[in-house]
Amino acid sequence: MALIVQKYGGTSMGSPERIRNVARRVAKYRAEGHDLVIVVSAMSGETNRLISLAKEIQAQPDPRELDVVIATGEQVTIGLLAMALKDIGIDARSYTGTQVRILTDSAHTKARIQHIDDENMRADLKAGRVVIVAGFQGVDADGNITTLGRGGSDTTGVALAAALKADECQIYTDVDGVYTTDPRVVPEARRLKTITFEEMLEMASLGSKVLQIRSVEFAGKYKVKLRVLSSFQDEGEGTLITFEENEAMEKAIISGIAFNRDEARINVIGVPDKPGIAYQILGPIADANIDVDVIIQNVGQDGHTDFSFTVPRNDYQKACRILEGVQGHIGAKSISGDDKICKVSVVGVGMRSHVGIASTMFRTLAEEGINIQMISTSEIKISVVLDEKYLELAVRVLHKAFGLDQEA
Amino acid sequence: MALIVQKYGGTSMGSPERIRNVARRVAKYRAEGHDLVIVVSAMSGETNRLISLAKEIQAQPDPRELDVVIATGEQVTIGLLAMALKDIGIDARSYTGTQVRILTDSAHTKARIQHIDDENMRADLKAGRVVIVAGFQGVDADGNITTLGRGGSDTTGVALAAALKADECQIYTDVDGVYTTDPRVVPEARRLKTITFEEMLEMASLGSKVLQIRSVEFAGKYKVKLRVLSSFQDEGEGTLITFEENEAMEKAIISGIAFNRDEARINVIGVPDKPGIAYQILGPIADANIDVDVIIQNVGQDGHTDFSFTVPRNDYQKACRILEGVQGHIGAKSISGDDKICKVSVVGVGMRSHVGIASTMFRTLAEEGINIQMISTSEIKISVVLDEKYLELAVRVLHKAFGLDQEA
Repeated sequence: MALIVQKYGGTSMGSPERIRNVARRVAKYRAEGHDLVIVVSAMSGETNRLISLAKEIQAQPDPRELDVVIATGEQVTIGLLAMALKDIGIDARSYTGTQVRILTDSAHTKARIQHIDDENMRADLKAGRVVIVAGFQGVDADGNITTLGRGGSDTTGVALAAALKADECQIYTDVDGVYTTDPRVVPEARRLKTITFEEMLEMASLGSKVLQIRSVEFAGKYKVKLRVLSSFQDEGEGTLITFEENEAMEKAIISGIAFNRDEARINVIGVPDKPGIAYQILGPIADANIDVDVIIQNVGQDGHTDFSFTVPRNDYQKACRILEGVQGHIGAKSISGDDKICKVSVVGVGMRSHVGIASTMFRTLAEEGINIQMISTSEIKISVVLDEKYLELAVRVLHKAFGLDQEA
Repeated sequence: MALIVQKYGGTSMGSPERIRNVARRVAKYRAEGHDLVIVVSAMSGETNRLISLAKEIQAQPDPRELDVVIATGEQVTIGLLAMALKDIGIDARSYTGTQVRILTDSAHTKARIQHIDDENMRADLKAGRVVIVAGFQGVDADGNITTLGRGGSDTTGVALAAALKADECQIYTDVDGVYTTDPRVVPEARRLKTITFEEMLEMASLGSKVLQIRSVEFAGKYKVKLRVLSSFQDEGEGTLITFEENEAMEKAIISGIAFNRDEARINVIGVPDKPGIAYQILGPIADANIDVDVIIQNVGQDGHTDFSFTVPRNDYQKACRILEGVQGHIGAKSISGDDKICKVSVVGVGMRSHVGIASTMFRTLAEEGINIQMISTSEIKISVVLDEKYLELAVRVLHKAFGLDQEA
């Protein structure tokens, strides 16, 4: 009796057989009397195939035309899923972004949704049809096809749930929920029944890439009830992402341990401790489109200070070259760095009302002889930068230290 | 200084390299100062791939959803061609059928064009852009994606030329024009500089499948100047298809020899010679969606007559079974037939004002000892049904007898 938006990713749509499986799952929900809007991604690999084709034609594909080309991936899967549903007797109708009308700005390849027309979808739902919508795409005010960027299908799902005031937005992936940490590193990792939006944001941005971060922000903004589920398991309630902390049934202080090994550290040693120095260092890095993550500036001594930050490992060499180029200008004694580091974070809204999380974390790492290179904190997370070789050990001992291996 | 619509088929768009070739050709015309609207097909093989995918999901794919899926083929190529043009410095913009707006009826997979909005295209042309339009597709009044059926991209090209009052519609194919007959059968076959629409219709329907027949009808209706050219040759003026006979510069009586070996003959012997008998025989055939081509009914004797017709060879067994089923009902003495036949036709508007074409044709065949099984005539063609083994011989001797091997 609920209105549910379900989103299926590329793996779930990866073959005719898998598309039929999705149709059977949709039919099961339909049989329970729910109204359903289904958002789908392109078949896995298809978007990359189309991008490669475009790059064979033009090294830097024209953004407007690239969107025309890559939007076809989801247009194929909406049609196929509608057929699969009709084939088992479920009335369904597919919609492209243009047909729904998912209005976006004109920022091709990374457009933002501005408005969703819900009349057509509501009429179909009223007529008893399952509505199938192409994820990842929209249309601008001039009728140009736009795309929302990588992972944009999650955003489409959440935006549709918000526009339709759906009871729940279910994101089907190849994992059955959000875990306390990566089970490949810690076999005792548990699936969380609930997680707050803020925690999910920290977990997602820290490397637990279950959901696209923009979709989580969107869900938080519009108070959409979001659930992550596995499309390969028939049972299981997944993980519910809640927007109110008191909805979180599990009272654990820490929800999970996130980590990221795709980082490198750069140190700028002995720069003059004066206003504007951070901008002089990071400005050229930002101009080169390199994302900077953790930033640390030590208290200066003798009019000089040390400045450290982390960048994606792929950009390490590039960032070093840029800084060597401006070293004289900024007056740094030396530039050094390390691309064999990792970042490990403990995340949890419970941190707000509990003291001692940081000390537990640092003590646990110290007991294992793990040296902490950098520390960064926010309201609901503490991140440490470590030598890469300690990653698995650090995650395991922290997982245990915060009792994440036990049901709350 | 002209407005030219160019249509490129799937072979011309078959690979990134070929798409770049098309872009170079378009650039050449652009450099000459022409305004250009380019219609493209899907990459060769792509439409079939998408249909196969659909059939894996649903044996008889839902027509609305099939159109959603197969319309993506041309959406990919318009984007790629726009990129290829931009890559060599030519400003261009792609349009789907929905974006142009090519309004069609709602007959999915075989829709008919009803109206074309030309505002967007005209604005782009005025701004100096090359306009690229997806062939084969349109949109109905409710915003559903439609397709025009096989060969529909030719129809899109002609319809755009008509809507924009273009000076010429150029159809690029893998042949460099329309020939007097198939050069594989008669090496002396010549490319025609001009052919009338009526002749082209007869040539196309008789097996010289250079252009989709609906596009030729469309061009005739709207007086669109149509030219067939090779996309693999840089030179050559192709064949101009004219809508006025006096534009035909070549004064040959006969324009070409068409032939078709995909035919089978069925004889219904000794049926009562009474009103309605043709319908009783052909009704069940039509109900089975079998196309009937040549139909001959002899003058009856003794209250009985013989009735013969040809069907596509693939449908021969099916047609025979149907007739055997109704033989008793229609009171036929016997059903017989032959699936080793062919049809050879001489085509030419000059026939209208010249007598003796039929006698020349029959004499020429008689001199080679070729027996004629059936004869069918129209205002501008004479067709004969022959034993299949005589096809090449008949085409060669007729080609020579009517002087087609010599420049008019």
